[in-house]
Order: sequence, then C-alpha cells, then structure tokens
Amino acid sequence: MRAEVISVGTELLLGQTVDTNSAYIGTFLAELGVDHTHQQTVGDNFGRLVSALELALSRADIVITIGGLGPTQDDLTRDGIAAVLNDQLIRDEAIVEHLKNEYGRRGLKLVESQYRQADRPAGGQPIPNLNGTAPGLICTKESKYVIALPGPPREFIPMLEGQVREFILSLNPGPQLFSRTLRVAGIGEGTLCEILADLMEGTETTLSPYAKTGEVHLRASTKAASQKEADIRIDIVEQEVRSRIGDKLYAVGNESLEEWIVKELTKRKETVATAESCTGGLLAARITSVSGASKVIGSSFVTYSAEAKQELVGVKPESIAQFGTVSSEVAEELAIGARLQARATYGIGITGVAGSEPLDEPPAPKPSGLVYIGISTPAQTQVHTLHYRGSRELIRERAVVAALIELRNVLLATN
Amino acid sequence: MRAEVISVGTELLLGQTVDTNSAYIGTFLAELGVDHTHQQTVGDNFGRLVSALELALSRADIVITIGGLGPTQDDLTRDGIAAVLNDQLIRDEAIVEHLKNEYGRRGLKLVESQYRQADRPAGGQPIPNLNGTAPGLICTKESKYVIALPGPPREFIPMLEGQVREFILSLNPGPQLFSRTLRVAGIGEGTLCEILADLMEGTETTLSPYAKTGEVHLRASTKAASQKEADIRIDIVEQEVRSRIGDKLYAVGNESLEEWIVKELTKRKETVATAESCTGGLLAARITSVSGASKVIGSSFVTYSAEAKQELVGVKPESIAQFGTVSSEVAEELAIGARLQARATYGIGITGVAGSEPLDEPPAPKPSGLVYIGISTPAQTQVHTLHYRGSRELIRERAVVAALIELRNVLLATN
Repeated sequence: MRAEVISVGTELLLGQTVDTNSAYIGTFLAELGVDHTHQQTVGDNFGRLVSALELALSRADIVITIGGLGPTQDDLTRDGIAAVLNDQLIRDEAIVEHLKNEYGRRGLKLVESQYRQADRPAGGQPIPNLNGTAPGLICTKESKYVIALPGPPREFIPMLEGQVREFILSLNPGPQLFSRTLRVAGIGEGTLCEILADLMEGTETTLSPYAKTGEVHLRASTKAASQKEADIRIDIVEQEVRSRIGDKLYAVGNESLEEWIVKELTKRKETVATAESCTGGLLAARITSVSGASKVIGSSFVTYSAEAKQELVGVKPESIAQFGTVSSEVAEELAIGARLQARATYGIGITGVAGSEPLDEPPAPKPSGLVYIGISTPAQTQVHTLHYRGSRELIRERAVVAALIELRNVLLATN
Repeated sequence: MRAEVISVGTELLLGQTVDTNSAYIGTFLAELGVDHTHQQTVGDNFGRLVSALELALSRADIVITIGGLGPTQDDLTRDGIAAVLNDQLIRDEAIVEHLKNEYGRRGLKLVESQYRQADRPAGGQPIPNLNGTAPGLICTKESKYVIALPGPPREFIPMLEGQVREFILSLNPGPQLFSRTLRVAGIGEGTLCEILADLMEGTETTLSPYAKTGEVHLRASTKAASQKEADIRIDIVEQEVRSRIGDKLYAVGNESLEEWIVKELTKRKETVATAESCTGGLLAARITSVSGASKVIGSSFVTYSAEAKQELVGVKPESIAQFGTVSSEVAEELAIGARLQARATYGIGITGVAGSEPLDEPPAPKPSGLVYIGISTPAQTQVHTLHYRGSRELIRERAVVAALIELRNVLLATN
C-alpha cells in the first residue's frame, strides 16, 4: 500500500512557513507500514492542485492533502478534490452547526464566506475538527482514497493520530514499523557510530543516529506484526548497545536529561542550585522546565558580573584577581557557593566566554568558547574544562547540556 | 521565469529530517523575482528522481535539486541529472584535489567510493563547496537550467546565497521582491489586523502578519527595480503603521525585544535585575543572550521556593502567608527586592502558575496560567496580572515576553 502527500499553500512555496507536517506524516506513514515515495507541494491554485491530485492518484493508493481547507477564497482543496472525484460539493448541516458553535465560542458571528468550510464532496465523510473550524475529509475514488487534512499542526496532528490512523489501519496496510529512541549523552556521534557500526548495518532492526545539541538519539526500528514481537527484537539491540556504552545511554523514549535529573533527585530527596555566568539562567530555566522541579530546586543565581559572583555566592576577590572570572578556580567557587548559599545537596557553577570575541581579562585573555563547569557535592568539587566552537547561542546551549551530563554522572557515581 | 525545487532523500519521506531548505529557497526565489509554483520530494531512487526531473523540466525554466550529492551509493542526484541531460559523468580532477584536501584536513584518507563526489556531467559547472566535500552543479539543457545543491544547510545556504544567486540574477529574472520586517509587541494579532485591515489589502506593497510568541511580525514587501524604489514604497507603509500603533512597533528588521532593551539600557547607562519564580531563569537567560548584556545585567535571582523569595530578595513572610507565593504583592516585592539586592536601576519579579494544575496554596488556589509581573523603578513599582492558556513551556515563554514588553514600556515612558 502506497500513500502520497500533497501540501497545499502558496505560503509554503514562498517560504513563509516551514512545512513540519510533511516530516510528521512521513514518520506516521512509516510506522503504519505504508510506503511513501513522493511528496508534492503546490500553491493555492485550482488547476495545479487538480493536476497534482491526478498525478498522485496515478501512482498511490491513498492521497493525503494538507492545507487549503480554510474559509477564504484561496482555500481550494475541497473544490479540487470534488473535481478529481467527479463529485459535487454539498453543504453539510452538521458541519454548519459545528462552525456556528466554534465561532460562537470565540464570540464571533459566522459570515457567509465562512460557510464554505461546511461544504464537502457528496460521497465524502467529514473528520470532526476538535481544535478548529474546518473538518477534514475522507473520500473514495474507485479503490483509492483521498484524505484532506487542515494545515495548522494543532488541527492536523489530532486528526491524523485519531480518525486517519484508525482508517488506514482498517485497510490492513502491512507490517507496521515500531521504534524506540535510545538517548545517549556524554559521547560524540562519530565515536558512537564507530562503536555501534555493525549494529547500524542491521537490516531486521535498524539503528539510526540523530545528533542533538550535546547529545545523540539512537532510533531503533523494526517492522513487525505486533508490538510484542517488535519489543523482543528491539530489546536485543538495546541490550547490546547498553553492553557497549553503559550508562551513557541515559534514557529510553521521550525522557529528557533534565527530566531524568529531576526524577532522580526527587527520589533521593536531594536538591540542586546553580550559579551561572555565561549561561545567564539557562541551566536553571532548563531544570525548572520540568513539572515538579520545585521539589529539587529552590534558589539559584545569575552571577553575570564579577561583583555578583562575590556578593551572591561568595567567590573570593583574590581568585578573580589572580585567575580571572573565566577560570577553573572561579567555577569551583561558584559551584560551592551556590550549594552553600542555597543549602542544596549539589551546586553547579558555570563561567565561560560565549561571545565570538576572546575575553581580555587579567591574568590572560580567554578564548571564545572556553567554558568551565564546576559540580560541587557534599564530598567534593570537580571542575570540567570545555572548548566549544559556534555561535553564542550554541556555546550556551552546549554548556547547559554538558552541566546536566556532569550532574548526572555525579548522581550515577553516588547511587 | 519559473523555478521548481526537487528535494531528494528517503530521510525526508520517512520524516527523519524536517525539510527547512525548501522554505529557505522559497523566500530566496521570491526575493529574486522568480516564480515558484511546484515542489517535489522523492527518495533516493534513480527512476523516481529521473521522472521528477523530467516533470519539473516540462514546466519550469530552472530546476533546483537539493540533496543526494554525498559519497554513498544512495546519492544518485549526479547520475539522475546526467541521464536527463543525455550527458555522461566525467571525473573532475580539480574536485578530486578539493576532496583530498578536505578529507586530509579532517585527518581522513579518501577511499575509492568517495571519489564519486568528483564526478559531474561533462557539460556542467561545479559550484565550490567551502563547508563540505561534494560541490554543487550548474548544468544547461537547451534553454533551461538544472542546479544541484547539497542537503546540509551549512553547505546549501552559502552556495545558494553565493554563486546561485549571482547566476540567477545574471538571467535577469524580473523585478525583485524587497521586504522589511516591522516588529510589534503589546498588541494581539487580531486587533492589529483590524487596525491595519486596509493596509493588508494593499497590492503594490503587501503587509502580512506572522504571529510569534507574545509578539507579531509584519512583513512589508514590494516588487521593485531597485532597493531605493522599494524603500520609498515601504517607508510610506511603515509611516502609516507607526501613525496607527505608535511605539507598539518596537523595531524594524532583525532587532529583537531583548536587543532593543540591552541597547537602550546601555545608552542610558542603566541596569536591570530579575527575580524569577515560574520562569526559573528564562528571563535572565533571554537578556544575557544578547552580546554586550554584561553592561546592563550583573546579578539576578531564581527564587523558585518560598524560602528563596525571602532569603534572596527579602520578600516578607507575612506577604506570602497572607496572599500566597503567586500574588500581586509577592511579584511587587520580588521586583523591588531584585532591584535593591542587585543595586540595579530596574527590577523585574515574576511569579505564577506554569503547570497545568492550579496551585493550591493559602489563602486561595491559583489557576493554571495566572502570572504576576512586577516592574520596579527608582520612582515606583507596577504589577501586571496576566492569564495564559497553554503548555508549561508556552506559559513561561509568554510571561518572559510580557516582562520584556513591560520593561520596554517603562523605558519608553521615562525617556
């Protein structure tokens, strides 16, 4: 069974919108075991849309359009599909009711032009839109199907994952693809690929690396008749990966590094505090992005200036004078100071040069991308020296991920 | 003159990569005045690539492929283009030299399979790749052109902006599109569209809104023979927008809200400090993301727990007991405390409920999405009460943008 996707919208061709729906539906189709060999994008143009639909129907069993279902004159997908199906558009009274309710809820009155969202090919089935106005459509053409979905992701995704998934599964598309994400931190993509080279050449279960900022996600996938069968196969690969890289594989599935840390600290009834210079609050923001973080983080400090380092967390003026604000000694004192001032179990101090220019301070200039991360525990304080290249934003992000990884290492070592 | 883009890569169809290149090239073509009516995506499959090229050449003057130029057997774009052009691939010795240098620089030896990156259709011109190995290609087919570019954005964008831009301009594609972004904060997209409705219907100069988190960007565009002509037309629209919304139009071009603030505070030799609860450092991180922020921010505080609010910035225990941690009173004291503790000109305090659950605290539960933002100046302290809907991440982001907008308002009012 083969599907083809047609994205509709002049804004896509003009580059005003990045098309994230196509990637989403690509993964979706792969998981359902549906082949997917072509995609097309056309603007809001009736003739071109009809040609695109005809071409897609000539080579695929299921054609899925995304976009062009709104209320304006530019929204031509309904008309295009009716033309290709040799069907006529009728006004669906149930959809009219939905539109009235939806506009009413927002305090708006339905105007004449907006009624066109209630039109559908006479033979088509509407897909209710729980997050917007225009419904989707499922239409049949001989033994083939045309499915129309709206463009806004918050309307598109729920319809796809709900009624469309159910509909495609009812067609028995073939063995589904099951996947599991293995999250790896503290090891570069290049080294990881070398260590796992043979597993990455696997054919029954594939293993593909995706580099993220400061970490790598490995996606293990297999086609199988059931989740159980897939789990057995993927378990084998996961075990093999674990045996080679140990706890560098820090989580399976959607759990992020900061979620792991908040969960672990909560379990241990321990807390953390940060004193950040070049990252300016980004590390604390990352930890507090996890729901329930209030159990593990109380106070933290943005110590951007030399004075702030001294006043807020007690970095010694002599250390700054002797080694500079970007130094191993200051990172150590930031970490210790954050821990003591906040009365936390762990303290993290970050100082570095995130700008593109070296920092000219006594006793010696510090190169751009130099970052020191201090991690203080009740037993000891370590400092890690890192050298990054890239933009200010990238250096800051990498430093934050590195700090999370080092905190995790400390937690693993004291488990 | 019309162009068509073909994205090549099975990873795009499987959804493993979001195709950002297509949007980039869409804007690029619009700016150059080249029509762009179709895009296609095909996998790493010779036959399908050839069909896609033939279809594109049947309806466009310039066909641009993206991807499929790498060293592996899957990379078939060179072969596909040669087939469509009825040309043969020859090995380009200058490219071989480039490859040897490039691999050598990375400490790698060029192996046999990688030499295929040096192959090109005999009639094609290579585009040097300054950021990778495989060059791009510009080929001619009768009066039409096929341009091949690599997929990685850091290789793709420089080639596009360099030699490809020059080449297309040499073909005199027609009047170019010139654009200017007007950045608006402190006014919702709906209201803005009402106020500017007639301008948005303009045909010579178009004005389109793009909603961002907490702000709206208006893109004013016009087709013109020169930058000067375009500037004159866009100036008129900009002036009209300014006359209607005043300083809600906070910047033109790429300057962000935080850049405006850092620039303004630097000019005034003033400083700011934050005490953040629900945003957990995100506001300080946003301000310190601007290069040169060290002139305007020294210390800031993450006061996530009730204790931290008292200890770090002196919020009164009575205020917390009487009104709760999420209250106007506590936001006010956070703002004042941040200002005084950091000896800054301005203090910003944020407290709110970013989680999806209401916060059950005395004297009364606080609903999810309730955020108080306090702004303290040497003369007075104001508190703004906001109600948001959405995810934890969205609530935090919106609160940060709202705080930046309120700080800007204060700076404008005291100018």
